[in-house]
Amino acid sequence: MARLLILSRHAEEYHRLLDAAELPEIEIVSTAETKKVKALGADPEIVFGEPSLIREVLTDLPKLRWAQSTYAGVEPLLDASLRRDYILTNARGVFGGLMSEYVFGYLLSYERRIFERYRAQQEHHWDGSITGMLRGKTIGLLGVGSIGCHLARAAKYFEMIVRGYTRSNESCPDIDVYYHGKDLLYFAEGLDYLVSVLPNTPETHHIVDAALLEALPPHAIFINVGRGSALDELALIHALEAKKIKAAVLDVFEQEPLPKEHPFWNTPNLLLTFHTSAPSLPADLAELFVKNYRRFLKGEELLHRVDFARGY
Amino acid sequence: MARLLILSRHAEEYHRLLDAAELPEIEIVSTAETKKVKALGADPEIVFGEPSLIREVLTDLPKLRWAQSTYAGVEPLLDASLRRDYILTNARGVFGGLMSEYVFGYLLSYERRIFERYRAQQEHHWDGSITGMLRGKTIGLLGVGSIGCHLARAAKYFEMIVRGYTRSNESCPDIDVYYHGKDLLYFAEGLDYLVSVLPNTPETHHIVDAALLEALPPHAIFINVGRGSALDELALIHALEAKKIKAAVLDVFEQEPLPKEHPFWNTPNLLLTFHTSAPSLPADLAELFVKNYRRFLKGEELLHRVDFARGY
Repeated sequence: MARLLILSRHAEEYHRLLDAAELPEIEIVSTAETKKVKALGADPEIVFGEPSLIREVLTDLPKLRWAQSTYAGVEPLLDASLRRDYILTNARGVFGGLMSEYVFGYLLSYERRIFERYRAQQEHHWDGSITGMLRGKTIGLLGVGSIGCHLARAAKYFEMIVRGYTRSNESCPDIDVYYHGKDLLYFAEGLDYLVSVLPNTPETHHIVDAALLEALPPHAIFINVGRGSALDELALIHALEAKKIKAAVLDVFEQEPLPKEHPFWNTPNLLLTFHTSAPSLPADLAELFVKNYRRFLKGEELLHRVDFARGY
Repeated sequence: MARLLILSRHAEEYHRLLDAAELPEIEIVSTAETKKVKALGADPEIVFGEPSLIREVLTDLPKLRWAQSTYAGVEPLLDASLRRDYILTNARGVFGGLMSEYVFGYLLSYERRIFERYRAQQEHHWDGSITGMLRGKTIGLLGVGSIGCHLARAAKYFEMIVRGYTRSNESCPDIDVYYHGKDLLYFAEGLDYLVSVLPNTPETHHIVDAALLEALPPHAIFINVGRGSALDELALIHALEAKKIKAAVLDVFEQEPLPKEHPFWNTPNLLLTFHTSAPSLPADLAELFVKNYRRFLKGEELLHRVDFARGY
């Protein structure tokens, strides 16, 4: 019998979903509050929940063998000072669809001039001018894991040219050209859209900097749905103010929520959203847990194992 | 040697594109003005251009065998009083991609609350509430020709359920369920989105009426990218004012440009665009003409022949 602790803001919903899955050989306890974990007396081998909550109880789980994160980003568990004597798996493969809706929603709202058309309507002006289109445009994906590859497939549906920048991975069939390492500025040259889906690691820190933004054409649009740390925020403000690029859409920031006094609130041609591009939906995450639990039971290798050193 | 008259607002561009295609056995003349046609003295067997312009010179083209329209809609040439002793082909298969960008751009801007997020940004408000999504939603396509089928494929990419309402055709692989004839209100029941791509024919006139709008759930969004005649405009105004449906997006109208005094300019929860969802792009249309001309030369059946009686 395996003992599972659900430790999540959505503990009740996860508990209900996992009960409904009728998993074999499991005892489930759940809470949304870390201070209640000890009183549960569960001594779990498995924990399923938000990385920041798991971090708080990490020293109270002597039997821990496996932690399944409900988030893609597991930064709170990566501190070198923390124990690493358990298997950490993160949420992957569940965000591609939602990210794709976000990225293509914003790209299309620019190309189809959805805001401008709305202003024309308010002025009772029949504006028959032709709008832009995605077809034939070139998109560059910074990071081509499961999310990037999902975006690449949408881009192909819209008849775009797709470039991918990765450490070394070339496994996504919808990427037309791959770039690696020092080829970052070649990758950026001539892009219509640059989209970062990179995780927060030492290697990705400020990878979108003044030099990269400078390498983009002036009509380029930048979207960040990965992690805020990938972007040098001051460099983006300068690039937008100096019209080095046309526009940007950011869902993630170095500090979240974005501080009230942050210049981004008023930066020209910048649209902000609030770390909502791809929410962790309990039904998706429960399904992922169930799949991994069945592997755990059989002693198979778990999906989406995080390499503590690499950071994802 | 075949004689071709290009009769189009974009006559110069088409002439250049067809010259570049180096078509065999053809003599090309072109003009944007119908009153100059006679002076060209071309006596063409083929005319390529806008249906409204072709209509004006129809009696001056005794040798006419084939007219290729640059538009999908060929209403001006369908009057029962006009000659029908030639083959009329329209533009098809070239608008699906652009229509898809339009339809999914607007659906995503609703689901991702792009306008609301922008307002939150203006108020410097970190709005972390979760947005909607296309995934799992049900879209109903009124009309499943080449455009409808293109939309269906996009809907499948976004993991939606797709219903199609057609006269009898069931040839699109991405439709989950087909409806015909009297099943219109069953088709509408429970739809999240209703999209009309119907042409203007007697059968489609005001097919989107009070009864159909009433059959939709109150959260439904209606988009019309086909022809304005498919919609009973007063019924839509009533439905939006009474919140029978959530919102509508219209690109086409019974009268275009939309008259200054039309109530649509101020109807709540209605977004207007200006017959720009899928422009006839000369490069696309020239390619279509070239393809059909090669069939014409070989005596093969032409693509996209219009049935004068049926109207498309």
